[in-house]
Amino acid sequence: MTDIKGSKSLITESHTIPASFTIGFLGAGQLAKMSAIEAYRLGIQVAAYTDRSSQEPMHYMCPMVTTGSFEDIKAMTEFAQKCDVLTLENEFIESSVLEQVQINSGTPIYPSPEGFAKIENKIVEKQSFEEAGIPVTPYKQIHGREDLKDFGHQYGWPFVLKSSKGGYDGYGNATVSDLDEAADMFTKLGGQNGHDILAEAFIDFSHELAVQVAHNGREYSVYECCETVQSNHICVAVVTPARVPDSIKKLAQKRALQAMEVLGTRGIVAFEFFYTPNGDVLLNESAPRPHNSGHYSIEGCVTSQFENHIRAVLGLGVGSTELTHPASVMINLLGTQNRTAQVEFSEALLSEPNGHLHMYGKVQSKIGRKMGHFTLLGNDSTRVYERAMRLTESVQI
Amino acid sequence: MTDIKGSKSLITESHTIPASFTIGFLGAGQLAKMSAIEAYRLGIQVAAYTDRSSQEPMHYMCPMVTTGSFEDIKAMTEFAQKCDVLTLENEFIESSVLEQVQINSGTPIYPSPEGFAKIENKIVEKQSFEEAGIPVTPYKQIHGREDLKDFGHQYGWPFVLKSSKGGYDGYGNATVSDLDEAADMFTKLGGQNGHDILAEAFIDFSHELAVQVAHNGREYSVYECCETVQSNHICVAVVTPARVPDSIKKLAQKRALQAMEVLGTRGIVAFEFFYTPNGDVLLNESAPRPHNSGHYSIEGCVTSQFENHIRAVLGLGVGSTELTHPASVMINLLGTQNRTAQVEFSEALLSEPNGHLHMYGKVQSKIGRKMGHFTLLGNDSTRVYERAMRLTESVQI
Repeated sequence: MTDIKGSKSLITESHTIPASFTIGFLGAGQLAKMSAIEAYRLGIQVAAYTDRSSQEPMHYMCPMVTTGSFEDIKAMTEFAQKCDVLTLENEFIESSVLEQVQINSGTPIYPSPEGFAKIENKIVEKQSFEEAGIPVTPYKQIHGREDLKDFGHQYGWPFVLKSSKGGYDGYGNATVSDLDEAADMFTKLGGQNGHDILAEAFIDFSHELAVQVAHNGREYSVYECCETVQSNHICVAVVTPARVPDSIKKLAQKRALQAMEVLGTRGIVAFEFFYTPNGDVLLNESAPRPHNSGHYSIEGCVTSQFENHIRAVLGLGVGSTELTHPASVMINLLGTQNRTAQVEFSEALLSEPNGHLHMYGKVQSKIGRKMGHFTLLGNDSTRVYERAMRLTESVQI
Repeated sequence: MTDIKGSKSLITESHTIPASFTIGFLGAGQLAKMSAIEAYRLGIQVAAYTDRSSQEPMHYMCPMVTTGSFEDIKAMTEFAQKCDVLTLENEFIESSVLEQVQINSGTPIYPSPEGFAKIENKIVEKQSFEEAGIPVTPYKQIHGREDLKDFGHQYGWPFVLKSSKGGYDGYGNATVSDLDEAADMFTKLGGQNGHDILAEAFIDFSHELAVQVAHNGREYSVYECCETVQSNHICVAVVTPARVPDSIKKLAQKRALQAMEVLGTRGIVAFEFFYTPNGDVLLNESAPRPHNSGHYSIEGCVTSQFENHIRAVLGLGVGSTELTHPASVMINLLGTQNRTAQVEFSEALLSEPNGHLHMYGKVQSKIGRKMGHFTLLGNDSTRVYERAMRLTESVQI
């Protein structure tokens, strides 16, 4: 790899941060924003490349934001050449594009294009993990009506149809109850137009779990197993530690570490699991970046997922993932109205001694849009959860 | 006050943060930087006005940095009009200028010009606190040789001569041992050219203490009493809590609160004290902004001085100042060479589980320049202090 800026990879070898070392984010939303804050803390410069023209969280806190398409290899290469290392904040980009940009610019990218290639397509993702012996939800690639019928026959109705790329927070997913509905949805998701579609068995789970793992090229650090609470396919809260038996948390952590070894990339990756009534812990999805399930770690852990992502990408020592309190609860603050954002709190929320408020600085609010989050620390998960819900329920955004 | 942006003061009354609410910093160094990070966390926009043309910490993390003189009321008014509220990061500005800018722009400034007027001149500062019954170091305004002779006669030699404005970290101060040296220094400090000069009795102290107080217009929050360790008039470390009797810490906190009430401003103010072998706790200096003595609070307290400064200036509820650990030690990372900054750490420092590194992103290093800091948390002040010193002694910047 050509050493274009002269400082590339320098950090790993020498534990030296050169002046004006720059990390570039592909994406400019709240994940980039919260990561950038940790880069700033370490005296690292930040740049962002986004495919959106509207005001995003990075715009108001980063002097170097470039707009362009995630398919424009030339523009992304120019951006990469101004940076010492690149990282992602979302998955709406092809690993082959990343690979080209990395080769053309000589700027390393983490998650590595090779690691990312193993998970960017949900079918390949499941195969990658399955091959490593990690239990995943039963799935099958669907090519047409016949496959849908077979899958329903094998795993029962309803089941879940998914686009193999680009889905999140319920977009690109649907639960289907019979063959006609399934065939209809297959077409809607683009199955007739060459989009890879997979069917997943409907899992009867009691808890959705998540574990973040950081890797800096030498060592792995695993976070506590947390529990994500979803409503309409959107994560509304995260409770840490998860309220499941210790053995289950340990199993999820072990499988997350195994899965991270499959990807072999530097950075942080979040792994989501289903915990079923009969005791299975099935890997559901992975996200090769800081993830909503780990926002609690800003105050809930000695070193947050964002700081460890930066440290891992730079090849610096990874900080302790130990919990700072017996219980952390993170509540997503979702837009309550479609309007220019006006964040209306209560005095009670702002004065809560162990409460920590994070707003993303988005100018436009939209019902259900993630506008910020509130983390409450304490001793007992259930009580902290109830209190956090009470404190945040009156917030208007 | 004219309501120019339409959102000014809105926060205080309604606990509402409007979209694009902007806080402006007068100054662009590391104190503005660490405060800005907390503003970003709350979704608040940041702007900075600096009188330096060189690259400062705010330049690399704030899209809105304006350069101009701190005497140029017109330029500062234009800057203020783009902001919803202004705050200071240093004291190299006249309260009368702040007052004019506040009137012309309609943008409130905290520390308030009236509060700041009580401390911008060290002679007035001592009078303000003395009148409120707070013990200060014995002092006298010096007009010439006769005053120097009298002061030496009354309080003994050596004593300290100080310029009443603009001094910091040993600049504008000198310890003088006899009348000729004192007269010489009086001239050097500008005493013959109308600069206000004061003499201060040389205090034989065992500890230098500091206490931060936050005030949001309604409530006061007092931080733990910490101990600053100085070398050549530069703070090299801060140990929290101070290693002095509890009664002394309480007394320092009580006097800091009293002093804050004298100033009556929103924001955070740091108060520095001398603790003497005969049990006196004398107020030495105050700084109406986040202060080096409070950097430990980023990880050492539930709510840092920087977050509480932002919250207080905005009139939001002030967060808990409780300690997160029995002991916090902050070590200033000073430049070790005159060169383009290359921060060379050790793996041990980066991997320290309870250690937290902050670098300010300054491009030029200079021997003794504050380039960053390292905070180590633990149970026993002395042991944590020794370990923090050991971990940081090999850092080359």
